[in-house]
Amino acid sequence: MPVHVFDNAIALQPQADGTWLGHTSPAYGNMIGPFGGITAAQALNAVLQHPQLQGEPVSLTVNFAAALADGPFNVIVRPARTNRSTQHWVIEVQQQGQAVLTGTAFTALRRDTWGASEHPMPDVPAPDEVPPSTGPRRVEWLNRYEVRFVEGGFPGAWDGADHGASRTRVWMRDHPPRPLDFASLTALSDVFFPRIWRRRARPVPIGTVSMTIYFHAGAAKLKETGTGYLLGQAQAQAFHRGYFDQTAQLWSEAGELLVTTHQVVYYKE
Amino acid sequence: MPVHVFDNAIALQPQADGTWLGHTSPAYGNMIGPFGGITAAQALNAVLQHPQLQGEPVSLTVNFAAALADGPFNVIVRPARTNRSTQHWVIEVQQQGQAVLTGTAFTALRRDTWGASEHPMPDVPAPDEVPPSTGPRRVEWLNRYEVRFVEGGFPGAWDGADHGASRTRVWMRDHPPRPLDFASLTALSDVFFPRIWRRRARPVPIGTVSMTIYFHAGAAKLKETGTGYLLGQAQAQAFHRGYFDQTAQLWSEAGELLVTTHQVVYYKE
Repeated sequence: MPVHVFDNAIALQPQADGTWLGHTSPAYGNMIGPFGGITAAQALNAVLQHPQLQGEPVSLTVNFAAALADGPFNVIVRPARTNRSTQHWVIEVQQQGQAVLTGTAFTALRRDTWGASEHPMPDVPAPDEVPPSTGPRRVEWLNRYEVRFVEGGFPGAWDGADHGASRTRVWMRDHPPRPLDFASLTALSDVFFPRIWRRRARPVPIGTVSMTIYFHAGAAKLKETGTGYLLGQAQAQAFHRGYFDQTAQLWSEAGELLVTTHQVVYYKE
Repeated sequence: MPVHVFDNAIALQPQADGTWLGHTSPAYGNMIGPFGGITAAQALNAVLQHPQLQGEPVSLTVNFAAALADGPFNVIVRPARTNRSTQHWVIEVQQQGQAVLTGTAFTALRRDTWGASEHPMPDVPAPDEVPPSTGPRRVEWLNRYEVRFVEGGFPGAWDGADHGASRTRVWMRDHPPRPLDFASLTALSDVFFPRIWRRRARPVPIGTVSMTIYFHAGAAKLKETGTGYLLGQAQAQAFHRGYFDQTAQLWSEAGELLVTTHQVVYYKE
């Protein structure tokens, strides 16, 4: 079986100094530099491959400090603190010795406990009842995902009308399908198009500056999810002087809440 | 006028090596170590006082790596990347050379743009129509805040009944009142009691492991808010194998959304 394009994109070579060498992937190219989700996945992948890793990701925060230039980059990860069953990671991605991404991650050995969800999956049509999005894809990374908008797709017209709300609900998965894991779930957490485009029907320049992901599932659960679709829901809470936030949830097709994720995004005008 | 207890608590002395020396404050003591909100405020304060600071906080993530011991600590902050109007910060708090907190912050010079809120303040009674919480305060830091629960206060009985939902709405401010700024707003973002206590009416051991704050207001707006109350709303989305999340909003008394904030919290059982 050929290696999936996503696995090629996140591949890292361990270096003698303990850092990891990666390379931007044209397959995940965005307007300027790569799709942020793939960069986040690359950063997490250095933690996942680290020989001292203990447990599984519970939270990840990445800050996009500058657009990556096409080419190689270094990922520097450090376990800043290792406790009995938890670990705190510090992450930096550099190009030419300059930080292009900073971040932190928290991993843990999880134990069985009482559990519950307070955010049930919305009642929406099944993936095969919703047509795939076939609009123009002006950036390459969009071709790496199959998306089926249930609500709040790209505006029909970029007419600048204020839609009053920015909520999107969408079925999504890797294209071609790929079994879900922490790296791909990280990238999928960033697949939503910018909330301000939905709200304002106006494609203003934007750029995510910080993204946080909380994982509410372990590796076994992700494996169960396999190549199934995820339902994503995303909405902004505030747009204020150049920055808006996005709060989002990702459920498995079976209705389990796998991820809650937030980001803050720069916008012009 | 005497210095406010909060200002004493977050005070930092610049060190010759560029780090900052702080000290835990008994006034903000928690069950084990200090209230996380005060530690987060101390960490942010090192960024706010840094001679190279550009702009105002837009986002802050802090990870609580270990309980702080009573006594001194060092805050190490570094501008990892400075762009034309934005800056990415890396933060670490150490005791005895060991990381007790890791974090990142993003600051920016904001410009006027189109703006909106998609999360209006809930319709609740005014602060003076809601009695202040006067229950037992088993930890010292609770005495530093005035809280008036509108909905979802401490369970009436710790009887282990599943309440089905964890939402709390509460008016809150520093006690004694203190004009709002980024540092106090950071601490106020962590004032909510653990969602799992509300949901399960069962005081299981907990500890926040990561908290992210997005600021939707600038210094001028915070100054306007003055010593007024903030309405806070917090709710969990998922409880899974030892970790639950909390998503929260803080509005000014005038109804402006000042902060959206999230955290992931360890729980036992």
